[in-house]
Amino acid sequence: MKILLVGASGTLGSAVRDELATRHEVITAGRNGADVEVDIASVESMKAMYETIGQVDAVICTAGSTYFGALEELTPENNEISIQSKLKGQVNLVLLGLDHVQDKGSFTLTTGIIMDDPIKGGVSSAMAGGAIRAFVQSAACEMPRGIRINNVSPNMVIESIEKYGPYFPGFVPVPAGRVAQAYRKSVEGIQTGQTYSVY
Amino acid sequence: MKILLVGASGTLGSAVRDELATRHEVITAGRNGADVEVDIASVESMKAMYETIGQVDAVICTAGSTYFGALEELTPENNEISIQSKLKGQVNLVLLGLDHVQDKGSFTLTTGIIMDDPIKGGVSSAMAGGAIRAFVQSAACEMPRGIRINNVSPNMVIESIEKYGPYFPGFVPVPAGRVAQAYRKSVEGIQTGQTYSVY
Ligand SMILES: NC(=O)c1ccc[n+]([C@@H]2O[C@H](COP(=O)([O-])OP(=O)(O)OC[C@H]3O[C@@H](n4cnc5c(N)ncnc54)[C@H](OP(=O)(O)O)[C@@H]3O)[C@@H](O)[C@H]2O)c1
Ligand SMILES: NC(=O)c1ccc[n+]([C@@H]2O[C@H](COP(=O)([O-])OP(=O)(O)OC[C@H]3O[C@@H](n4cnc5c(N)ncnc54)[C@H](OP(=O)(O)O)[C@@H]3O)[C@@H](O)[C@H]2O)c1
Repeated sequence: MKILLVGASGTLGSAVRDELATRHEVITAGRNGADVEVDIASVESMKAMYETIGQVDAVICTAGSTYFGALEELTPENNEISIQSKLKGQVNLVLLGLDHVQDKGSFTLTTGIIMDDPIKGGVSSAMAGGAIRAFVQSAACEMPRGIRINNVSPNMVIESIEKYGPYFPGFVPVPAGRVAQAYRKSVEGIQTGQTYSVY
Repeated sequence: MKILLVGASGTLGSAVRDELATRHEVITAGRNGADVEVDIASVESMKAMYETIGQVDAVICTAGSTYFGALEELTPENNEISIQSKLKGQVNLVLLGLDHVQDKGSFTLTTGIIMDDPIKGGVSSAMAGGAIRAFVQSAACEMPRGIRINNVSPNMVIESIEKYGPYFPGFVPVPAGRVAQAYRKSVEGIQTGQTYSVY
């Protein structure tokens, strides 16, 4: 399969790429140093990316910024970070990409454990994740041409302990390689509308 | 209690007002003909509303527009209707209202059955609902001064059959008065972080 992987240079994206590149052609996308340049916070940039790549069998997104900060510091303005990137970025990647995915192809988006298991400072991220989960479940029922759509919701991964560990007390991290299997299931399997929680 | 009810003139809002006004002082808010004028799609308008009303014990939102239309007609632009109103409108009503709610007060937001039980054309609404549910669960854990927050997710109500019936085949509508009890539970009860599904 020809797979577009947005966020390929990141912690999760690298693990997904390692897993899929052995069997598939993976086109990497991101703001820096990828095969195709894209900023998912910009509709114009995503349109240009899809023009460049043409048709693919699968689109995976492991990109998406969110605002982290205590509820009392959360404002309409900083909450926009999560809305523009993790929420709208991923939704628009699907809306703009529909015509660029082959029959029976797939989309796979990313959320995270915070939407189910709240942590301090995670309200904005939870909000974006909840939106993506419901979007995926509902969009799956209306996808044209047998296209499927799923969502992977990872726990904190072991590879991110140094960066995020202190924010996730009592969470037992999982290997990124295990999370990558959920993306594989979504791309190579037959299910749709699912949220694969890798907790 | 002194209760701010945004969307009081609507189908759900009227039922909530009928239920609560017998025991509480209800201040109505909306774009037209309410005690206080507000457009929840505008941060400035909500700030002005809170300045006008001062302090309340509870804030309820039964307002929130969404875009309805088939997935293949959903665009980044028309999806903004749901994001600006039902999603960000409700989230910002909480963020901007925190300092205007008394200790142990409450917020109650509104989603809907579509986020759990997809219907044709409901993708954008589902997305907004999912965001609100996850926001509520996560924000509840960080609320200051004992303030609580819940979400009511109604089925289609009997009072809306003429307007929405054809879009909800096989859904068994519930009376708006029954849905109003969930808002009462949220305001007068002790729970927080809940989604009350009235299906
Ligand atoms: N790491 C974890 O433990 C974990 C756990 C649960 C959920 N998640 C979620 O998984 C996703 C990825 O996490 P991660 O830790 O792998 O992040 P990361 O290491 O920071 O990687 C993010 C990737 O996305 C790209 N990217 C970021 N913003 C972008 C934008 N606006 N447009 C296009 N590409 C963009 C980055 O490349 P450029 O900077 O070059 O664009 C990079 O390739 C996030 O949504 C995160 O919340 C992560
Ligand atoms: N009716 C149902 O069967 C049902 C079922 C499940 C969920 N819901 C959800 O419940 C909510 C209310 O539904 P409804 O049927 O009661 O709607 P409705 O009858 O159309 O009433 C909407 C109310 O919100 C106000 N409003 C709308 N946009 C506003 C804005 N931008 N700023 C401030 N106020 C605004 C309206 O007054 P103004 O126009 O004067 O501003 C009106 O009072 C929606 O989120 C809907 O998705 C409804």
